[in-house]
Amino acid sequence: MAMVCLSDFEAYAKKYLPKIAWDYFAAGADDCTTRDENILAYKRIRFRPRMLRDVSVMDIRTKILGSEISFPVGIAPTGFHQLAWPDGEKSTARAARAMNTCYIASTYSTCTLEEISAAAPGGLRWFQLYIHRNRAASQQLVRRAEALGFQGLVLTADLPYTGKRRDDVRNGFRLPPHMKVKNLEGAFEVCKTSPPFHSLLWHAPHGTKTTGLDPSVTWNDIYWLQSLTRLPIIIKGILTREDAELAVRHGVQGIIVSNHGGRQLDEGPATIDALVEVVEAVRGRVEVYVDGGIRKGSDVLKALALGAKCVFIGRPALWGLAYKGEEGLQDVLRILQDEFRLSMALAGCASVSEIGQHLVQLSKL
Amino acid sequence: MAMVCLSDFEAYAKKYLPKIAWDYFAAGADDCTTRDENILAYKRIRFRPRMLRDVSVMDIRTKILGSEISFPVGIAPTGFHQLAWPDGEKSTARAARAMNTCYIASTYSTCTLEEISAAAPGGLRWFQLYIHRNRAASQQLVRRAEALGFQGLVLTADLPYTGKRRDDVRNGFRLPPHMKVKNLEGAFEVCKTSPPFHSLLWHAPHGTKTTGLDPSVTWNDIYWLQSLTRLPIIIKGILTREDAELAVRHGVQGIIVSNHGGRQLDEGPATIDALVEVVEAVRGRVEVYVDGGIRKGSDVLKALALGAKCVFIGRPALWGLAYKGEEGLQDVLRILQDEFRLSMALAGCASVSEIGQHLVQLSKL
Amino acid sequence: MAMVCLSDFEAYAKKYLPKIAWDYFAAGADDCTTRDENILAYKRIRFRPRMLRDVSVMDIRTKILGSEISFPVGIAPTGFHQLAWPDGEKSTARAARAMNTCYIASTYSTCTLEEISAAAPGGLRWFQLYIHRNRAASQQLVRRAEALGFQGLVLTADLPYTGKRRDDVRNGFRLPPHMKVKNLEGAFEVCKTSPPFHSLLWHAPHGTKTTGLDPSVTWNDIYWLQSLTRLPIIIKGILTREDAELAVRHGVQGIIVSNHGGRQLDEGPATIDALVEVVEAVRGRVEVYVDGGIRKGSDVLKALALGAKCVFIGRPALWGLAYKGEEGLQDVLRILQDEFRLSMALAGCASVSEIGQHLVQLSKL
Amino acid sequence: MAMVCLSDFEAYAKKYLPKIAWDYFAAGADDCTTRDENILAYKRIRFRPRMLRDVSVMDIRTKILGSEISFPVGIAPTGFHQLAWPDGEKSTARAARAMNTCYIASTYSTCTLEEISAAAPGGLRWFQLYIHRNRAASQQLVRRAEALGFQGLVLTADLPYTGKRRDDVRNGFRLPPHMKVKNLEGAFEVCKTSPPFHSLLWHAPHGTKTTGLDPSVTWNDIYWLQSLTRLPIIIKGILTREDAELAVRHGVQGIIVSNHGGRQLDEGPATIDALVEVVEAVRGRVEVYVDGGIRKGSDVLKALALGAKCVFIGRPALWGLAYKGEEGLQDVLRILQDEFRLSMALAGCASVSEIGQHLVQLSKL
Repeated sequence: MAMVCLSDFEAYAKKYLPKIAWDYFAAGADDCTTRDENILAYKRIRFRPRMLRDVSVMDIRTKILGSEISFPVGIAPTGFHQLAWPDGEKSTARAARAMNTCYIASTYSTCTLEEISAAAPGGLRWFQLYIHRNRAASQQLVRRAEALGFQGLVLTADLPYTGKRRDDVRNGFRLPPHMKVKNLEGAFEVCKTSPPFHSLLWHAPHGTKTTGLDPSVTWNDIYWLQSLTRLPIIIKGILTREDAELAVRHGVQGIIVSNHGGRQLDEGPATIDALVEVVEAVRGRVEVYVDGGIRKGSDVLKALALGAKCVFIGRPALWGLAYKGEEGLQDVLRILQDEFRLSMALAGCASVSEIGQHLVQLSKL
Repeated sequence: MAMVCLSDFEAYAKKYLPKIAWDYFAAGADDCTTRDENILAYKRIRFRPRMLRDVSVMDIRTKILGSEISFPVGIAPTGFHQLAWPDGEKSTARAARAMNTCYIASTYSTCTLEEISAAAPGGLRWFQLYIHRNRAASQQLVRRAEALGFQGLVLTADLPYTGKRRDDVRNGFRLPPHMKVKNLEGAFEVCKTSPPFHSLLWHAPHGTKTTGLDPSVTWNDIYWLQSLTRLPIIIKGILTREDAELAVRHGVQGIIVSNHGGRQLDEGPATIDALVEVVEAVRGRVEVYVDGGIRKGSDVLKALALGAKCVFIGRPALWGLAYKGEEGLQDVLRILQDEFRLSMALAGCASVSEIGQHLVQLSKL
Repeated sequence: MAMVCLSDFEAYAKKYLPKIAWDYFAAGADDCTTRDENILAYKRIRFRPRMLRDVSVMDIRTKILGSEISFPVGIAPTGFHQLAWPDGEKSTARAARAMNTCYIASTYSTCTLEEISAAAPGGLRWFQLYIHRNRAASQQLVRRAEALGFQGLVLTADLPYTGKRRDDVRNGFRLPPHMKVKNLEGAFEVCKTSPPFHSLLWHAPHGTKTTGLDPSVTWNDIYWLQSLTRLPIIIKGILTREDAELAVRHGVQGIIVSNHGGRQLDEGPATIDALVEVVEAVRGRVEVYVDGGIRKGSDVLKALALGAKCVFIGRPALWGLAYKGEEGLQDVLRILQDEFRLSMALAGCASVSEIGQHLVQLSKL
Repeated sequence: MAMVCLSDFEAYAKKYLPKIAWDYFAAGADDCTTRDENILAYKRIRFRPRMLRDVSVMDIRTKILGSEISFPVGIAPTGFHQLAWPDGEKSTARAARAMNTCYIASTYSTCTLEEISAAAPGGLRWFQLYIHRNRAASQQLVRRAEALGFQGLVLTADLPYTGKRRDDVRNGFRLPPHMKVKNLEGAFEVCKTSPPFHSLLWHAPHGTKTTGLDPSVTWNDIYWLQSLTRLPIIIKGILTREDAELAVRHGVQGIIVSNHGGRQLDEGPATIDALVEVVEAVRGRVEVYVDGGIRKGSDVLKALALGAKCVFIGRPALWGLAYKGEEGLQDVLRILQDEFRLSMALAGCASVSEIGQHLVQLSKL
């Protein structure tokens, strides 16, 4: 089987992963409308390609928060990489470093931050954080990440409670006994009877069942985070101009337009649609990124044309891991890189600085 | 089979109900376009969810006409509950009371109003009324409902004649001999040769066949109803701003935006689309409710965002009954309640008073 | 098999007619886009039904060019009724008279005008005319129709050449030897080697093959027709405001908005869409009718709401004939009549004079 | 099997061509969205046909750059005709001459320009050119074409690198050993280790692999071309008003609106949609043509109504060759000619000079 495009990796993962793992990675909330819209919304955008420009020398590098990456695609935070490949997040870190791009490690990793750092010293990494009811635990995570050389803190804003992913409920999804949410071990002695990964299983916010996460978090907690660390803070999960404005006013350094891969509130906007609104509101004051629905190099070009500084891929990275671990993830990244470079050239751009909104025509839909 | 969402109950009911009963409950008029549009129209509406609001304490209660209910979902009037479950409307009444919500009992119940009242004393109930050619019969029903403690009178406005539901015609639908439209027994001695439930079978308004219902009813009959009772009158079946204005002027206390589940005039508007127009016309002078197409908690949130005070569910309640009687209906209501609470939280609302039109983006379609 | 709606007759005809006959009746030009759009365009229109109007006494009669018909549905001109039923157009004439409506007999009938007249004396009938290269033949047909009591002359304007209906070409469609285009026998002695029904088979307008029809006809020929007869002239096949204006200026009495059932130029407008434009241009100066895509009584209501005085049905009439001859056609008409009456009542109209544009909402599509 | 419309030839070719050849001809870039949109976009355009115009004498001839052709359909440049028929481009040239239309011979022909010329002396032919890194090779081709009597030079502007056609990558597409890109033999002695037809296989523009083509070409190279030849220059691959304006300013004689059959940048505009924008920008200063998605005579009529002087067909020509060589291609052209003539007549136009934008209604989509 030739691995020609990202769908080939998806087909492979669907075929070879245990059903419970595939279902967990693929899950969207409720009817999965937003998960699928993330992809469909890209298809509605048309390029306006320009001809006869010198594209003999292509430069696809960019910078995010001052760090250069080889092309504007990073790895979005997703949980439980050992479900996809035995080495888990260690492989992810190695692949990201090999491809010279940014990897956002999830709180819900099956390797510790220390293991991840040791696996790929010197790689560009950000750490994704949930704020826990037990604030000391969150504080400890932030300090560890900073000490280990992570260069950004990504605060997930869209998960006060876990979305309702029907297949996970049907499957009674939980981690196999030999996998652990290792970053939280020790930190959550208090939670032993209700281990944090339980929160991955949907339950309604009754108040009776507790997850580790704190649903009372507000914008003021950004200030608290800022008091803990000198790392730049990137907020993830913003979908409206109003929240984008609030994010800027609260001093974040970056915004990831995200709907959590369609796994939280179903029937919110596709991220590429929300990106337009957020970019307009931010007016260049902070960097804006986007995740969700990226399946081709030309999707990256569209996101950049609409104002994203960089995109992050979630499920495709897991498919790559499922295929061949770090090697498979590199394959995925390399295909995206090649497709992105080619799309740029065919649209008439020789460097990312030439990409702009003139390249696309938004559907009147 | 895990019952995770309302579609699971639908699948169960389709599998286990007698075909003639399933067809009757599922039926839409003509091509069933409006029945299906009721659902599709919800899917076209996108949320604009807000982040980082304190949603640790959720309050999903609301009031309708001054009575508190546990969440803004009541039971719409539908006929013949014994077709779904042996105890019929008695089970419905018990489930509604257990979940602390409002049940609108249909004239076409297979239990009497008295049986319904006795089954769940103290529950919040409204009575749904058709105006019959024999006005004395209607008057008697109103007086019985008022005496039994029903707290509202729901006048159905969209059934001067019964819609053409093709499957019912093909099946020659009628009640099995051991079921009766009990509320009308005695009241309709005059109609013996043409029992009222005949009107459920479509026939064109020739004038030759008589149904029990009066197709000459006009707005002035609201005054007549008001002269019979002190109960608040809620008019059900309004779809235009013009009729909404007339309803307010004739002194009703509430409006249910409804197209009778798509069972009357096919190719009228989806109710959630009509709701926008009606709410705008009413300008807060009376309460506005909506039924039709509610399948998820997030649909309830959309309806409230667009101005409904409460929604009512029809077919999903019947699926719950078909599954396990009052227990099954409670399951359905509890799922909707949990989903509604979660949707609110994920959209950034901790109480129903925080829900507003800013939460949704209507499709330009 | 219960015959509940028009689709039931369609299914019957498809099953029992010889394939070559079914294909001929069903055929659309090229990709059949316009044939299918005729139906889909109706589905895009939404009603705005009004409630609580006295609809106890329904009056669905109307008048076309001064003649009363029992409801606003007539029989459009279609060819070769013997392909559907042995008695052919004689049965059609009888059914139309029995239902008290108007039948437009086609030039391409398999019975003579004399036979049609004799089959149903006193019925309201119009005659559909093509203008032939041999003008004397056309003149003779007009005179015969007038003498036989036909009350209108319908000039088909959209067939200078026959549309390309792929299935007819593949089937090598022609009439079975025992059927004749009887009206043209004798009149076309000159055409013996190229019988007129050949023109039903597509061929490009090379000029080398001759059909009986004259592709040089222009608006001035309306004056010529007017000089031949005192019958009112109705022009059939108008789709634009420009041609509607020309029709009025040339003194026609009526316009049938038609695309020949999608059998001529594919990818022209659906007739119900073109109706809006034509009605606006005509401003009530002549009566406007429409054919194409009528499948339910509510379609009739939509057409009238958009300004049609009456609609004509083509294929559904043939399905009725195929089912049971004149009895089957009466069944079709009676179902449409019942559905139309019910739609009116459910939309709040007790007579056709109450139908208006306020009843519908055109899609923004 | 009757060959009634172009889809019949497509079905034949799909059935009888070797899979690797069919896949190569059918291929679109990435998801093939633009390839398919080229066709779908035509279907969204509606005619506004006019009636009762004298269409008894039809004149469908037109002129392109001063040369008369029998109807406004030419043969677009496509590569490797021997994959479809043993005689390859010689058959194409003969069919084009027989039908008195223009054939644009591709650089990637499997016959030499000399063979093509000799096969059909006196035919109207243009030569399609890529600009190679080895400019001397391009210059030599231009001079040969001019000397052989080619009457126009078509510069392809949209292929700085080859688009990613997944099936070709999977198939490892390359020419069978007995076929050669004959025009380039000798001219590319320098490229022996990387034969030019390799560039048909996608690879990202790394710079490491070299194709024969020069990705540094800019608008100034038009001036260079003009210095080499007195032939009119037609630029192919323009999709925006900005590039159309540049083309005019650089002195080209014609523009072919093209997206390379959807084989280069996927998710650019359909060509018929881009045509509107280009025609508007050009304001008649040069001739504008279009290719991509033409499947019926009525598509040609739409393109002309929107301002194209002529259209060119790519894949349908190959299907015709695959069916029966030059005879099959003549069949394809004859069907298009007949359909075009009929569409014109049914829309009310007797000559191409009567075709205008009033004939079509663009969808609001």
